[in-house]
Amino acid sequence: MAKVVVLRLGHRPGRDKRVTTHVGLVARAFGASGVVIAGVRDESVVRSLLKVRELWGCRDFFVEDGVDPVEYVERWKKGGGVVVHLTMYGVHVDDVIEHLRSLGRDLLVIVGAEKVPRVFYELADFNVAIGHQPHSEVAALAVFLDRLFGGRELRLICPDAKLYIVPQQRGKKVVRVERSDGLSP
Amino acid sequence: MAKVVVLRLGHRPGRDKRVTTHVGLVARAFGASGVVIAGVRDESVVRSLLKVRELWGCRDFFVEDGVDPVEYVERWKKGGGVVVHLTMYGVHVDDVIEHLRSLGRDLLVIVGAEKVPRVFYELADFNVAIGHQPHSEVAALAVFLDRLFGGRELRLICPDAKLYIVPQQRGKKVVRVERSDGLSP
Repeated sequence: MAKVVVLRLGHRPGRDKRVTTHVGLVARAFGASGVVIAGVRDESVVRSLLKVRELWGCRDFFVEDGVDPVEYVERWKKGGGVVVHLTMYGVHVDDVIEHLRSLGRDLLVIVGAEKVPRVFYELADFNVAIGHQPHSEVAALAVFLDRLFGGRELRLICPDAKLYIVPQQRGKKVVRVERSDGLSP
Repeated sequence: MAKVVVLRLGHRPGRDKRVTTHVGLVARAFGASGVVIAGVRDESVVRSLLKVRELWGCRDFFVEDGVDPVEYVERWKKGGGVVVHLTMYGVHVDDVIEHLRSLGRDLLVIVGAEKVPRVFYELADFNVAIGHQPHSEVAALAVFLDRLFGGRELRLICPDAKLYIVPQQRGKKVVRVERSDGLSP
């Protein structure tokens, strides 16, 4: 599978802080290579994401903010990548996911907040719906990546993690890794 | 499939307003029968959910808030229902989902905010992980329901909808239904 990057549009500092953080956490946990937050900078979101990365690993996962989204999308396409925009108005995910997988090309996955400017519908190679009901960009991203990676992403444990979980029927078991191999970030 | 209800724990008014709204929207869009919000009341969340229900239909989908969660869970179990708590510390979803489906019993799906009190790990019949990485209760709920209903839920159109979408490769096509059959809410 080629590289998958998530582009978050329309973040409003304060108001969207938690939802954008969830978008970034889902990007990392569901196997994307990084998340790019368009427009305004929001230190608190970036800080939360980097803190999770430090503890749970995958230090190659990148977080960028303050990016011009149209420029970013155009550069992505010039570089040979494919652009997918998740929107309830698009074509059903199950009707395109195999095609997307078969392309073997880098994917930029755009998720918006409330109103996404028309230009992104035009720039996207695929406008893809995770169902045609209003719900959540966090949910849409998760289900899209889950479909794309065929569920394998849910077994992710990062080799450089300081913490990992041992699954339990009841209660919590977290193992802290003490490293002397230079792998810790 | 028997009834599925979502119980949202730990909602903090203001701070969690958008995330709890997303939880409720995902519950509706992914085929649950209703969402119950524990503890404090938050009019703004309930209002958003009811507005979506009015436009996009499924008027049987119920929204309750201000509920005592322990009491609710205990009543659910007494009524013969099964309780699933979504947590990154639990057993992997793919290791239990078929079993859960095969039970044919009503399911209460608990999703928490940051810290979930220990009692819910104890009360739950199943503690289930949507992967073992930190991400989002919105994403966890969506992937769980998607697995449970086998993806069929993403074709949902409510018979009493005032609005529905005609999927498009580009742009938006929304149809407004004018009813004279008494079906509108």
